[in-house]
Amino acid sequence: YRPIKMASTSFHDPEVVKFLDKAFEIIKEESLQKGTDNKYPVVDFQQPKDLESLLDTEISSEPATHDQLLDALKKIIQYSVKTGHPHFMNQLYGGLDPYSQVGAWVTPTLNTNLHTYEVAPAFVILERYIYKKMLALVGFEHGEGLFCPGGTASNIFALHLARFNKFPDVRKNGIYGMKPLRMYTSDMAHYSLKKGALYLGLGTDNVVTINTDDRGHMITSELERCIKEDLEKGFVPMYVNATSGSTVLGSFDDLTAISEVCKTYNLWLHSDACWGGGTLLSRKHRHLMKGSHLCNSIAWNFHKFSGTPIQSSAFLLNDPSGNLMEEANSTKAEYLFQPDKYYDASYDIGDKTVQCGRSVDIVKLWMQWRGLGDSGMEAKIDLAYDKAHYLTEKLKITEGFKMVLPEFECTNISFWYIPKRLRGKVEDDGWWQEVNDVAPKLKERMMKAGTLMIQYQALSTKGYANFFRVVIVNQHVNYSDMDFVIEEFERLGHDL
Amino acid sequence: YRPIKMASTSFHDPEVVKFLDKAFEIIKEESLQKGTDNKYPVVDFQQPKDLESLLDTEISSEPATHDQLLDALKKIIQYSVKTGHPHFMNQLYGGLDPYSQVGAWVTPTLNTNLHTYEVAPAFVILERYIYKKMLALVGFEHGEGLFCPGGTASNIFALHLARFNKFPDVRKNGIYGMKPLRMYTSDMAHYSLKKGALYLGLGTDNVVTINTDDRGHMITSELERCIKEDLEKGFVPMYVNATSGSTVLGSFDDLTAISEVCKTYNLWLHSDACWGGGTLLSRKHRHLMKGSHLCNSIAWNFHKFSGTPIQSSAFLLNDPSGNLMEEANSTKAEYLFQPDKYYDASYDIGDKTVQCGRSVDIVKLWMQWRGLGDSGMEAKIDLAYDKAHYLTEKLKITEGFKMVLPEFECTNISFWYIPKRLRGKVEDDGWWQEVNDVAPKLKERMMKAGTLMIQYQALSTKGYANFFRVVIVNQHVNYSDMDFVIEEFERLGHDL
Ligand SMILES: Cc1ncc(COP(=O)(O)O)c(C=O)c1O
Ligand SMILES: Cc1ncc(COP(=O)(O)O)c(C=O)c1O
Repeated sequence: YRPIKMASTSFHDPEVVKFLDKAFEIIKEESLQKGTDNKYPVVDFQQPKDLESLLDTEISSEPATHDQLLDALKKIIQYSVKTGHPHFMNQLYGGLDPYSQVGAWVTPTLNTNLHTYEVAPAFVILERYIYKKMLALVGFEHGEGLFCPGGTASNIFALHLARFNKFPDVRKNGIYGMKPLRMYTSDMAHYSLKKGALYLGLGTDNVVTINTDDRGHMITSELERCIKEDLEKGFVPMYVNATSGSTVLGSFDDLTAISEVCKTYNLWLHSDACWGGGTLLSRKHRHLMKGSHLCNSIAWNFHKFSGTPIQSSAFLLNDPSGNLMEEANSTKAEYLFQPDKYYDASYDIGDKTVQCGRSVDIVKLWMQWRGLGDSGMEAKIDLAYDKAHYLTEKLKITEGFKMVLPEFECTNISFWYIPKRLRGKVEDDGWWQEVNDVAPKLKERMMKAGTLMIQYQALSTKGYANFFRVVIVNQHVNYSDMDFVIEEFERLGHDL
Repeated sequence: YRPIKMASTSFHDPEVVKFLDKAFEIIKEESLQKGTDNKYPVVDFQQPKDLESLLDTEISSEPATHDQLLDALKKIIQYSVKTGHPHFMNQLYGGLDPYSQVGAWVTPTLNTNLHTYEVAPAFVILERYIYKKMLALVGFEHGEGLFCPGGTASNIFALHLARFNKFPDVRKNGIYGMKPLRMYTSDMAHYSLKKGALYLGLGTDNVVTINTDDRGHMITSELERCIKEDLEKGFVPMYVNATSGSTVLGSFDDLTAISEVCKTYNLWLHSDACWGGGTLLSRKHRHLMKGSHLCNSIAWNFHKFSGTPIQSSAFLLNDPSGNLMEEANSTKAEYLFQPDKYYDASYDIGDKTVQCGRSVDIVKLWMQWRGLGDSGMEAKIDLAYDKAHYLTEKLKITEGFKMVLPEFECTNISFWYIPKRLRGKVEDDGWWQEVNDVAPKLKERMMKAGTLMIQYQALSTKGYANFFRVVIVNQHVNYSDMDFVIEEFERLGHDL
């Protein structure tokens, strides 16, 4: 056998240990400490072409030295967005905590998959423990749960189970020859359902968009009207996706009212609580999820409101039959799910999914939850609401800001920024066009300043011009950071 | 505003820093060092019910102390399987290296999603760089790539694109009213395609299983025969899944021959190279993937053969149109993919997928590849082959072992273990039944000894009784470990 040379990869090699120690120090100082510190920028923005050369991505035939790798690590950190920074309010995620970080670090060192208990005993136990806690909060009587690769994946998985539940033959035969199955969701809903429709062969035209009221809630009477219309046309109503915390406005659909309609017409009710599910952790705010126990399934992203590192997407199912996931998905692969196991094979959950390997997303959430306690998980939510409330009230009375809604149900707060020259003018179409055009310009200035990251978007279903959406999830965001947002908009935008 | 108390989560808090430092030491020593050391067990097996109490999972209202958390961390490590251990040969993954670990650790500290360049600038650049390297190895002329949450997800995504490519109206209308679309795969293939068929609404009955030859290769003439038969029956042949490195036997289908058939009948050719794709990194072994450039798409898991931490699943597409993924999947969400961006929006890849958030799986692979160089990535493959070859030759001449195949194309090596009392006996049905029943018993002894983890399975399509499958991927596996496998089987199993 010819000898083959490669860089040392032994964890017992003192040079490797030195490398690991140094890398850990860099990660701690550059990413965790500076990256969460107001004194440093939230982003060092570079155009793609420039970044390609700045990053020094090139891989050659020979191994890089440890110094080169550490240098590359520093550069990756430097040019990455600091989502744990108090001034990152750009997405529905952000904020870091030490407990979930440790959970995230240990996971790749034990590098395994959640398909069988055999290879992931501790993780299977932790996952079961955590989803039982969730199920209690949701109120499912016959609950089951598992983690999916993202909220969209959870939402699509729900749709799949709903279809199988109603038409089990689909599994073998496909949906050829069936009457079109119809899905309903509000005009404020996330695009997951559309992606699900195009993925599962159901067709986006069969996603019926239900109008919302002026606060962004699905209008239940509209839902019923559309269902009836579809029945008359010979379609088969199947699925309602209720949004529990909408992506842009933060609105919560009325689960109780919608479930009444679903019961009447025998439809599956799914709650997309990817964003708003976190409210279940708070005694003060969980009323927004009232009726959650009436759903058939719920998707709840901990990586959004709770700040668990991405991805942490729980899928919860209320399944009186107790074997829906198994029947819908199992293929009984001999090489993985041997019938003659030396332990209780009900702990092998892999065959209940449409995955094979399933990444271990549980340790970070379990560590975080244990590190903060139920009270800390609750405090994270309550703190975010308190700051969002403070910001809303302050924005309302500050010149140059115009609220999209008078109140917000979640901690994403939307407003238009009006530069000086447009204030106090007649709000006609031309004016709105100008306000619309301010947003991308202000955003660009913000990114180049690197002081603040806040998303803007239009909302064409409501006819809204581009507006900004501040998302508050990070427990390290202070009231002073709320003040900073207002000052920074004015500093960067007043002359636009 | 009422004050809300929670555990400190500041990375500037000296107590938190102490906690992080201690956690890192535990991870380094207990998981990375002991976990990869032959002197320690590969698993401390406990039955599920016992483990539930041993792990001390309980979360209470109050935060756990740092000491409690560190203790919990130790327990999680203690009771987890050490997949980086040289005696873990149980799955198609295993082995650890320091470079990909560092990449995995920094990722959650920068906690973001790959949907837009805006929030993941460095990661978008790294992902593009890496998949271009892969595309060059594969030989796609119009290549595109991205990372999916697992190989099964990649395989299902390929099926979806193939369907859209042939029938773009499916996106809007679904597949109602169409003639059944047929998919072909060998009897050695992974169950991904079945899961894809049941997920995408195509039906598992429309997955046609093609027989393999005695080495596990799809018989091309059988493929053609089945396609013709389907055409006669009025079905619509659409998709061939070739297996490049089968899960159990490691066989590689002949991509060139299959692509001829696909060309004739205008079918999409996908290579499931989740396992065998790693051979592309080796000049010596890449001939097994000959014809890869003729495929329409390829799924290649780096977390298997290359030992990148899970998950690292590349999906590669040969797309002369240049916008298939976009057309198949985009929903143009206003809140994420604004048309008026301040940078080249072609770097926003999120809308090409069926996901929204997409976890950052790239840093660990990029770090690993840069840390080892092309030569090291190659050496990892070549080293595994050398050991697999050594083991095969030694098993052939050792009493008590019977090979499933005389040679293996990949580094998963399958054999029956024959305990003393069954050696030299007539190999009739009763004998095979006994050999079959030995496997679970020996496996149980192995797990309880904690010295070795090797998978067993039956292969009913070939009529094979339970046999063992050793998988060699870890660069720290030595020739002496191969000797150990043989000795340990004999020690634990001779009297069965
Ligand atoms: C040939 C083959 N394809 C696909 C897969 C699925 O990969 P994943 O576990 O990443 O979904 C496997 C897993 O073992 C496999 O062996
Ligand atoms: C309401 C809602 N549902 C689902 C999702 C999708 O979650 P993920 O990004 O984890 O796929 C989002 C993402 O923003 C969301 O806002």
